[in-house]
Amino acid sequence: MAIHPLTGLKRLLVGSPISTAHAEHERLSRVTGLAVLSSDALSSVAYATEEILRVVMVGGAAALSLATPVGVVIALLLLIVAFSYRQTIFAYPSGGGAYLVAKDNLGDTPALVAAAALLIDYTLTVAVSIAAGVAALTSAFPSLHVSRVELSLIFMVVLAVGNLRGIRESGRIFSVPTYFFIGGILVLLGVGAWRAFTGSLVPVPDHAAALPVHELGLFVILTAFANGCTAMTGVEAVSNGVPAFRKPESRNAAYTLVVMAVLGVTMFMGITLLAHAYQVVPNDTETVVSQIARAVFGGRGWAYYTIQAGTMLILVLAANTAYADFPRLASIVSRDRYLPRQFMNQGDRLAFSNGIVVLSTCAGILLVLFGGDTHALIPLYMIGVFVSFTLSQFGMVIHWRRMREPGWRTSAVINGFGAIVTAIVLVIVATTKAAEGAWIIILLIPALVVLFRATRQHYDHVASQLSLHEFTPLPRLKNIVLLPLSGVHRAVLQALHYAHTLSDDVRALYVATDPQSLAIVRAEWEQWGEGVPLVVLDSPYRSVLEPLINYINDLEAREPEAYVTIVLPEFVPARWWQHLLHNQRALILKGTLLFRPNTVVTNVPFHLTR
Amino acid sequence: MAIHPLTGLKRLLVGSPISTAHAEHERLSRVTGLAVLSSDALSSVAYATEEILRVVMVGGAAALSLATPVGVVIALLLLIVAFSYRQTIFAYPSGGGAYLVAKDNLGDTPALVAAAALLIDYTLTVAVSIAAGVAALTSAFPSLHVSRVELSLIFMVVLAVGNLRGIRESGRIFSVPTYFFIGGILVLLGVGAWRAFTGSLVPVPDHAAALPVHELGLFVILTAFANGCTAMTGVEAVSNGVPAFRKPESRNAAYTLVVMAVLGVTMFMGITLLAHAYQVVPNDTETVVSQIARAVFGGRGWAYYTIQAGTMLILVLAANTAYADFPRLASIVSRDRYLPRQFMNQGDRLAFSNGIVVLSTCAGILLVLFGGDTHALIPLYMIGVFVSFTLSQFGMVIHWRRMREPGWRTSAVINGFGAIVTAIVLVIVATTKAAEGAWIIILLIPALVVLFRATRQHYDHVASQLSLHEFTPLPRLKNIVLLPLSGVHRAVLQALHYAHTLSDDVRALYVATDPQSLAIVRAEWEQWGEGVPLVVLDSPYRSVLEPLINYINDLEAREPEAYVTIVLPEFVPARWWQHLLHNQRALILKGTLLFRPNTVVTNVPFHLTR
Repeated sequence: MAIHPLTGLKRLLVGSPISTAHAEHERLSRVTGLAVLSSDALSSVAYATEEILRVVMVGGAAALSLATPVGVVIALLLLIVAFSYRQTIFAYPSGGGAYLVAKDNLGDTPALVAAAALLIDYTLTVAVSIAAGVAALTSAFPSLHVSRVELSLIFMVVLAVGNLRGIRESGRIFSVPTYFFIGGILVLLGVGAWRAFTGSLVPVPDHAAALPVHELGLFVILTAFANGCTAMTGVEAVSNGVPAFRKPESRNAAYTLVVMAVLGVTMFMGITLLAHAYQVVPNDTETVVSQIARAVFGGRGWAYYTIQAGTMLILVLAANTAYADFPRLASIVSRDRYLPRQFMNQGDRLAFSNGIVVLSTCAGILLVLFGGDTHALIPLYMIGVFVSFTLSQFGMVIHWRRMREPGWRTSAVINGFGAIVTAIVLVIVATTKAAEGAWIIILLIPALVVLFRATRQHYDHVASQLSLHEFTPLPRLKNIVLLPLSGVHRAVLQALHYAHTLSDDVRALYVATDPQSLAIVRAEWEQWGEGVPLVVLDSPYRSVLEPLINYINDLEAREPEAYVTIVLPEFVPARWWQHLLHNQRALILKGTLLFRPNTVVTNVPFHLTR
Repeated sequence: MAIHPLTGLKRLLVGSPISTAHAEHERLSRVTGLAVLSSDALSSVAYATEEILRVVMVGGAAALSLATPVGVVIALLLLIVAFSYRQTIFAYPSGGGAYLVAKDNLGDTPALVAAAALLIDYTLTVAVSIAAGVAALTSAFPSLHVSRVELSLIFMVVLAVGNLRGIRESGRIFSVPTYFFIGGILVLLGVGAWRAFTGSLVPVPDHAAALPVHELGLFVILTAFANGCTAMTGVEAVSNGVPAFRKPESRNAAYTLVVMAVLGVTMFMGITLLAHAYQVVPNDTETVVSQIARAVFGGRGWAYYTIQAGTMLILVLAANTAYADFPRLASIVSRDRYLPRQFMNQGDRLAFSNGIVVLSTCAGILLVLFGGDTHALIPLYMIGVFVSFTLSQFGMVIHWRRMREPGWRTSAVINGFGAIVTAIVLVIVATTKAAEGAWIIILLIPALVVLFRATRQHYDHVASQLSLHEFTPLPRLKNIVLLPLSGVHRAVLQALHYAHTLSDDVRALYVATDPQSLAIVRAEWEQWGEGVPLVVLDSPYRSVLEPLINYINDLEAREPEAYVTIVLPEFVPARWWQHLLHNQRALILKGTLLFRPNTVVTNVPFHLTR
């Protein structure tokens, strides 16, 4: 059998389909699971410290040391949240995203709020991670700084195509850079710490002392804290992805989550302490991690470039967490009919291609609008993350109360503590970041909830209209086939031929605008019309459409029990631009007749060969 | 009978249709013909003098007097060209546009060049006339100067809607401002001349004496001449519009042409002489005619505002010449199959609505691109005008030689002289204006010719493929009707019901992706399927489309003589946004099957009520 050209193109781009029976082999081991699902959480250490420093630096050089206590609070929070999510993994082995947990325990509206927050979160994960990855690249090669947006978009397209190819390749591809990054940062921390202890440390030459000094109020310190909480993003990814693990799924996922949390805290605190030790001051063209690496390794040598490459790779690839989660969540929400059913369809390669396309489009728009600048995107990022954290943890508290399994009180206390802590962070983030862009998200979440509800309501209405309740089969109707023609040619005769197979009552319709043409058509129909009657319609106003419509109206009034099928030849051109030269009248006729019952317009393709 | 909502909207916008029998009453008298067809030619006196002055002013105050001899040459040319076209009216009583004359006498390629030139010319007539009309308005009310582009677009939309209403209203509407303008300018010339002779003339206070003085070379004088030739645009309109006149069409048209030429020369030379007498210097914010009127009538009084209003009206409405000619020419060219057949269709009101829409769109783009500035548009204008003049006159020479009617030599000499003169002007215009924008048109004309030829070639190919030459009627084929379904509901049963009327061989197709759903569908089909067999297709890769395509492939291989009709329910939503939630799979299936023979996809509309 010949392969359809479109199918061929699809295979070339996204590979051959995989059968259901092979799906198990696509599951993640602990090693690949850490690589795929923790890149978001781990990669945020590349910018979290910098986001804190950018705020406290308004207090002058001395204030930079504030980053350390702020970092300690955030590290503690990260461990609390991770511990909370570890419980979710066992309670929801089929994947306990905030949406499912909230739906199960808190009801529809909180669940939809969580869904909106998560979809926004995933989109911003893509945008922020790619922007930060490109920043790592342009720190190493400052001449690329002007092409940030273009580079971001290129990375995003590569990611999207990779994900359309399916999750297993993702696991394989992502193992290398994730472990490369972890190894690189740990070496950096080790060498940096060694130098600090042995006194061979050389501070980054910068203008820290020249910073203007302002009094730091509580609001500024809270802002710094809110910024630093980016370190916590992505913690939930593992608990959402439990069913992607090999058996035993929950145990593998829980192990992966703990390893991830410990690694994340270690790396985040290490970078924060090194930034303090080396007196790093953030600037617009070089990242804090790049400055530290340059100082620790003594300039831009191979070790420095290795760190930058690892950082760039894990960041750009961290977006992959979202590429796994966004389509999965969209599919779940769409199964509940709150999103169009296109998101429910699985692509041939088990990845949900529509979700991937929507995610890439939205993230691309964000990257362009915000000029590919990590720092500008961060305020939008945090709201969605902490809304979902909070709803998820509160949902777990209700879950434990409902289940009352042995030890439920301890579990409820752990999740309750997590819920209160993340709720407090949410309020801090919303307060300190609203003016910097978070207002967009504060408006977008309820807007999405309204959209979800409208979609669901429409599908419910459709379902009730489609219901077979009290449905009685209709009597057999007859079918009158009409064949409008403007001349007698092969395409018309092919349509006539087809019309003959549909009904014994076929009528050709001709709208007469001048007598000569009518005479020609009459004579030709006599010869070629296979005995089908030619109905001639007068057109005093020279309009072709109106007499046809009038005839159909009359016919339907006289024969209310009959279907009316209008058969039209449709030219299928050999080249796309030829479409402009054909079929306009057929389209208009179809559009005009679309809204009437018992009328069907059928196009019989006539294939042009050139 | 209820009127279709779209028909209602159309009637509201463009009026009720007019029957063929009424068409004769829409013909033009000499009086209305002058108003409709000469507004382009006459209105150009509003800017022609200014375009000459704008060039010669680089030679300083003394050089401004050069405008008078240049004007005399142009006036003579105008009479020569008008006299040439008067002959065309009698030789081509059915409308002797440059396209028809060139096609008859010079062959296809010159005809297509003429058609391209004319279509461009009409488009620029709209853009230039509207821009100049708005300039007349902003000269009177300088505060409107910043809104030039917006005003231009508003005027254009008013014109387009007016023309969609049909030509008779046009005649009536345009009689008033045309005669108003002619009267106003003649009064202005009379009063101005009286003041000049009686010595009560007060020169326009300006900085003429302060102009820097440059030596004027031949190139500059030729440029001034080329600019002034805008006075000649529109002369051909009457000869194109002969059949729009009442009987005897040719005599009425010839009379109108002569009156128009005499009026045009009088007004153009009058303005040029007054500009000299009052020492007017062009500037960017006030037109020359406005300066003259201000000087003659002693400031901005009612007489001044009357002149400006008349100028504005005739200019904006001069675009109407093009609104009559563009769709008419497009229709003729499209009848020869060089343009898509959409341009051949007459709208309900005898106006060719598609042409009007294309013309308005192109002119609107030009107005926006060139900032609504007459002076910037003029260089583009002249090429098209003089290409068509030249081809038309040369064509007439060949016409007389072919016909050899009594006195043909005299006629041939007149047209030959016209042809040589306009060819020289064309060369001058192309040389002096190429750098100022005329290069666009020099490239566009051949590009359009290529497009015309490609269109014609395609239609020729189609015609040969549609030809009934050696066509033998096909044997009666059977029709196998397939009904793919994803569940059993009212829309499916309605489609089933329809499918029953088409064939005795109806088969329901279900792609099974999981066993539970299959069991449900099987049971429901047992109850509702009216005995139609349910074919279950396996989908190892969970794709829905591929098993269907494979089944159809197999079926067609087994039954090469049969039509295969795929019947799909199509949801017709009550609101537009609901379209996003439905029918995607049906569309994909239709697109995939479009290119195979003997396969027809039929959508049975299912109307959602909310």
